[in-house]
Amino acid sequence: MAVIKKHKGNFLEDFRAGQVFRHKVGKTLTEGLFNAFTPYDMTANPLHKNRRYAERYGFRGLVMPPGLVMNVVFSQSVEDISENARANLEYIDMRFGMPVYVGDTIEVSSTVLGIKPSSREADRGIVHVQTTGRNQHDDVVLTYERKVQVWKRDATVEVRETTVGAVPHVACELQLPAYDSGRRYEDLAHLTSSDTYFEDFTPGDVIEHSPGRVITTEHVALTAMLDNTSQVHCNQYLIDQQPEKYLGGQLIVYGGIPFNLCLGLSCPDVADNAVADLIYPSGRHTAPIFAGDTVFASTEVREKRDYPGRPDLGIVATTLHGHKFPRKDGNPEKVDIFYLEREIVVKRKTHYHRGS
Amino acid sequence: MAVIKKHKGNFLEDFRAGQVFRHKVGKTLTEGLFNAFTPYDMTANPLHKNRRYAERYGFRGLVMPPGLVMNVVFSQSVEDISENARANLEYIDMRFGMPVYVGDTIEVSSTVLGIKPSSREADRGIVHVQTTGRNQHDDVVLTYERKVQVWKRDATVEVRETTVGAVPHVACELQLPAYDSGRRYEDLAHLTSSDTYFEDFTPGDVIEHSPGRVITTEHVALTAMLDNTSQVHCNQYLIDQQPEKYLGGQLIVYGGIPFNLCLGLSCPDVADNAVADLIYPSGRHTAPIFAGDTVFASTEVREKRDYPGRPDLGIVATTLHGHKFPRKDGNPEKVDIFYLEREIVVKRKTHYHRGS
Amino acid sequence: MAVIKKHKGNFLEDFRAGQVFRHKVGKTLTEGLFNAFTPYDMTANPLHKNRRYAERYGFRGLVMPPGLVMNVVFSQSVEDISENARANLEYIDMRFGMPVYVGDTIEVSSTVLGIKPSSREADRGIVHVQTTGRNQHDDVVLTYERKVQVWKRDATVEVRETTVGAVPHVACELQLPAYDSGRRYEDLAHLTSSDTYFEDFTPGDVIEHSPGRVITTEHVALTAMLDNTSQVHCNQYLIDQQPEKYLGGQLIVYGGIPFNLCLGLSCPDVADNAVADLIYPSGRHTAPIFAGDTVFASTEVREKRDYPGRPDLGIVATTLHGHKFPRKDGNPEKVDIFYLEREIVVKRKTHYHRGS
Repeated sequence: MAVIKKHKGNFLEDFRAGQVFRHKVGKTLTEGLFNAFTPYDMTANPLHKNRRYAERYGFRGLVMPPGLVMNVVFSQSVEDISENARANLEYIDMRFGMPVYVGDTIEVSSTVLGIKPSSREADRGIVHVQTTGRNQHDDVVLTYERKVQVWKRDATVEVRETTVGAVPHVACELQLPAYDSGRRYEDLAHLTSSDTYFEDFTPGDVIEHSPGRVITTEHVALTAMLDNTSQVHCNQYLIDQQPEKYLGGQLIVYGGIPFNLCLGLSCPDVADNAVADLIYPSGRHTAPIFAGDTVFASTEVREKRDYPGRPDLGIVATTLHGHKFPRKDGNPEKVDIFYLEREIVVKRKTHYHRGS
Repeated sequence: MAVIKKHKGNFLEDFRAGQVFRHKVGKTLTEGLFNAFTPYDMTANPLHKNRRYAERYGFRGLVMPPGLVMNVVFSQSVEDISENARANLEYIDMRFGMPVYVGDTIEVSSTVLGIKPSSREADRGIVHVQTTGRNQHDDVVLTYERKVQVWKRDATVEVRETTVGAVPHVACELQLPAYDSGRRYEDLAHLTSSDTYFEDFTPGDVIEHSPGRVITTEHVALTAMLDNTSQVHCNQYLIDQQPEKYLGGQLIVYGGIPFNLCLGLSCPDVADNAVADLIYPSGRHTAPIFAGDTVFASTEVREKRDYPGRPDLGIVATTLHGHKFPRKDGNPEKVDIFYLEREIVVKRKTHYHRGS
Repeated sequence: MAVIKKHKGNFLEDFRAGQVFRHKVGKTLTEGLFNAFTPYDMTANPLHKNRRYAERYGFRGLVMPPGLVMNVVFSQSVEDISENARANLEYIDMRFGMPVYVGDTIEVSSTVLGIKPSSREADRGIVHVQTTGRNQHDDVVLTYERKVQVWKRDATVEVRETTVGAVPHVACELQLPAYDSGRRYEDLAHLTSSDTYFEDFTPGDVIEHSPGRVITTEHVALTAMLDNTSQVHCNQYLIDQQPEKYLGGQLIVYGGIPFNLCLGLSCPDVADNAVADLIYPSGRHTAPIFAGDTVFASTEVREKRDYPGRPDLGIVATTLHGHKFPRKDGNPEKVDIFYLEREIVVKRKTHYHRGS
């Protein structure tokens, strides 16, 4: 007889540059998951709420919002890549491909791009991966790199810095329904704001989004719904045994939740007339979130440019910032929690709202 | 560069009698929304739980319960009408039309019937609106009036009392599947109570519904699922900054949640043999609800009458009362929270349960 | 005028051996219910997560996990059988039949097998029932016996011990798709663990499952989603009025939730290559759970045997144990909460993973 305790996930010394993980399980996206996440964050784009509108725009049905696509793909990679992580450092070159719908099944794989041991701390290092999610037709829905700080299993083991060299190219082109002047888009123009079209954005402007949203212990269930297995989000006993080991000494909210929430809080002001998010060149969590924190967001408009081949659309390059006010006696202190470089594909008034 | 903070919603001085709002976004009703609300409140009518039963009765599938229909329609109107409200005063003449199913898309509009500045307080007044929800086929599913107390943006601005005069008629007739003696309804009679048919109600009786249900912080997510954007339900920081400004100094539970909960708590005793709710002539929230409160309900049977053209059905006119016991040390005090005049269309034993 | 308070459910003196209850309402299983429960517990078997995988294995679609099937059937029986129970004592001979899918409608009946008054306490006794759930095609999906301790309405009423004699046989055979060597199962072998096939289990081994999961106040909503009407899970006022009467003096978590959670926590180690659970010969809750407790599980492998007629599968007989560490200052104490004899039908590497 043996007592077996399987430890999940990999440690720094387990990774090899070039290694490919085909992540387990996969996930079919139900209307239950959709409902738990899409309205959670005050997303106001009718593509994600109103099937009549989404079909009018040529989509097959309700479109999964970008924050949920990111969360599904990311979470599938957690067990292999970051189950034993100390911190998620950076998202890089996150690109969207095929739209994702309720009923789709997403499966995910990751390639290890590099491993870099810490020069200062013997017990950890950075793993650099490229993660790609595909639907049941093998269409790429999302690809991105991330850098994550991972513990060693054994701090005395020497780990060499290695890299694959050039980052492999993953073909991932945003797929959008064609513009069709016969579709009478303007019949539905009252379903979105009249001041969030491409023409309405001015580079240099900073939009402070009005709404705030408290995060409650609901985060434990939301994280489970994503199949994110990391224990620091749900194992209260683990934290209570060694509070000093864990950031804040309490259950930490999975970063994908404020990622999604900041996108949603910004939506009524900058994305309710978007047809898609195109790319997130870079993103980073800058402080942890705990149950009880109220999250806010703001958007800096950095640049506007044409969308090649689509005169009806334009690209708005922004930086999305998240912040919180921890709940405490006395003066609450503003804490930056998140930023994301974000390029949004936005409808032009010339094609969708001529009356205005 | 400009720093922009868009304030959402309208203030008292923004409304004009006769003004029509076509509310933004719209909402497709998923199985996720249905599951979050329908069992939440202990609804026991199999029309809302058991597809086999609903189809036997001639409905297309699972029927959305009336409290959820009301919540979906109401919430779509919040941003335009009551984002800057101090209190929701009254529901008037709320009438149900076409049954609502999972998969339907609901869009909503409102007409301003009148504006009345407060004679005592310079900073507020009452807005009287008529709100109507329609499905994707343009069938009316619900229409009602409400009176809501709204803040002024600027207390020094003078607002005149105005009205459209007569309330416009919105055609909204309850649509029910025909009675069909070939359907063998009695095969499924065991799925409902045997003592909640039309014949079982006696005007003058008061039924104290046994179950109580605590409301937890879940209310924040439920409110978001309805796309209700009002900040007093979810922005903890806002409340903490000025607790004296907000009722109870804490996040307040959105009124649609106890509305729905009281309907559900009453269901096993008065509505599990109903085929629909017909009309709510009047309703009012009489005290706020906070997380931790346990909600109870009772029903007063006021009157019974025939349902024109349908000998298989009858109308039971009731008043639904909600109350709570706030959680505190010492003797808990009963507080009335809600009442609703409610007319229910109930099956007759003569047609659906002859054996009894 | 009368004031009516209907008391729900039966008391010890209401039961008769041989009595049959056809339970009310029934339940159509939506994607919302599926999403709330299936990922809740860290289930990792792709049959319950990934439609592509489930269909490759010959199932009609996403398969409801066994803990959810049990919870749906059990909860439908609560009002008639255990609304007035003091404690749920034992599950016996719980057998699975037809797989259950999203969209199925489950209706449930129970037969009273015996009543036994307590010899020591005049106010209670044991009710022994057999409960069976069927889908909309009248296929049995689950059948089991349970013993439950039920209060008397009136402690002075004498109740005789009675029994039906032999337990009636309910035909309930596990229905599984046939093995088909043309299906190329190995294409999807990367979606499950490589060390959880039939060949990988050794009788006598004890597997301590790594993950733990805190239960929050979410349990109130989850219990409602199952239509479990028992007030000790959701009526805070009831508990606060007489805390000494109720176990722990607080809302108690419905036992089906840790039942489901322990199955899920064990899944990555023992059931992600299962095709079904076959039978739970015996099970018992050994301590209550409260919000804030973190739940863990372990599995003892007791026996392995062939699955008659299916050389591609084998049966692994296990005992699943649940335990918790109540959250308190000082040294947390391990408390056993649950055990379940559990026989799992597991794929063999010889047929599904030849490469390994």
